[in-house]
Amino acid sequence: MDSFTPDALLEGMRRRSQTGPRHLLEPGPDARQQQQLFEAAAAAPDHGQILPWRWVVVPASARQRLADAFEAALLERDPAAGQAERERAREKASRAPFLALAIVREGGDGQQHITLHERLASLGCALQNLLLMATCQGFAVGLASGLALRSRALADCFALAAGERAVCFVAVGSAARRRAPRERPHPARFVSELQPAAD
Amino acid sequence: MDSFTPDALLEGMRRRSQTGPRHLLEPGPDARQQQQLFEAAAAAPDHGQILPWRWVVVPASARQRLADAFEAALLERDPAAGQAERERAREKASRAPFLALAIVREGGDGQQHITLHERLASLGCALQNLLLMATCQGFAVGLASGLALRSRALADCFALAAGERAVCFVAVGSAARRRAPRERPHPARFVSELQPAAD
Repeated sequence: MDSFTPDALLEGMRRRSQTGPRHLLEPGPDARQQQQLFEAAAAAPDHGQILPWRWVVVPASARQRLADAFEAALLERDPAAGQAERERAREKASRAPFLALAIVREGGDGQQHITLHERLASLGCALQNLLLMATCQGFAVGLASGLALRSRALADCFALAAGERAVCFVAVGSAARRRAPRERPHPARFVSELQPAAD
Repeated sequence: MDSFTPDALLEGMRRRSQTGPRHLLEPGPDARQQQQLFEAAAAAPDHGQILPWRWVVVPASARQRLADAFEAALLERDPAAGQAERERAREKASRAPFLALAIVREGGDGQQHITLHERLASLGCALQNLLLMATCQGFAVGLASGLALRSRALADCFALAAGERAVCFVAVGSAARRRAPRERPHPARFVSELQPAAD
């Protein structure tokens, strides 16, 4: 563990950058690597240990079904959508060798002292662990969101329970070439200090 | 970077566990280490690069002011709170050598296509990076939330803008002895696979 220094960790964190799922190709993580991705997620803080999130992996065998849901989601919001638009919606389901949906449980579990904000922050912690692990495994990663996440069709496809909500897809794969990570914002842009006395 | 393997990363993630802020003692991170904590936070995914979160560090010189805010927050929800209870509320402001408030910007910035859920997930990613970095630096860490976060007194103290909301305090310091990290949930508890066809 001697090389697991703060500098090495920061470099690892900075290597994680967004790759569009359409650029994520085979190979993706194998079964053992996928297990490790979720072991990383499991190490996230979880106030009250309520596990306020879950993940659904979309294997190759279920991509057709996801394509159906994406197309139905499009037709929910635009019943007049044309063939080309419908094809584009379907095509998104075939991207990236590893694709999983992150779902938050907002409530309905008798644990309302754990707020929505805490639940989503915990999900974000799990998500970041997963992204860092995939990057450390040598893969490129991407997140995807969009209006389909709020559709009836997607909720039905993933059997979302009352109180659950889809947050984002996480995609993992191999990128032919990875973009240089973007410039990160300087801490001065988002950190301040509380002053001793009110103005 | 050769030792920055997936196994080493997972071990590092598992070393992060919750230490109650009252058990976080001097020394805390120095200025250079604090800078690194926020450089880690800056490496979080941020859809649209809108920086939907910020952090306010509470230095020693401002702990008295935070204690005033905690006491006022208590009196907001219980105007009849007694002296002992008020002292307990104040005491929380003195915990941990490094204490910072995480704040999410929920909206009001013309970027409503980035949902609250995405903003909070991004904050969670930044938070996890910060916690992992502090752990890697050799510190113990803890998160704290509670009803005071939603008080008028705290909003005033931290000058929360319309659309901003306090999410949690993050505390970093040295622990005399750290609890063994709790057992993490097995992925089987929170991962499933989408089936090819609807039931």
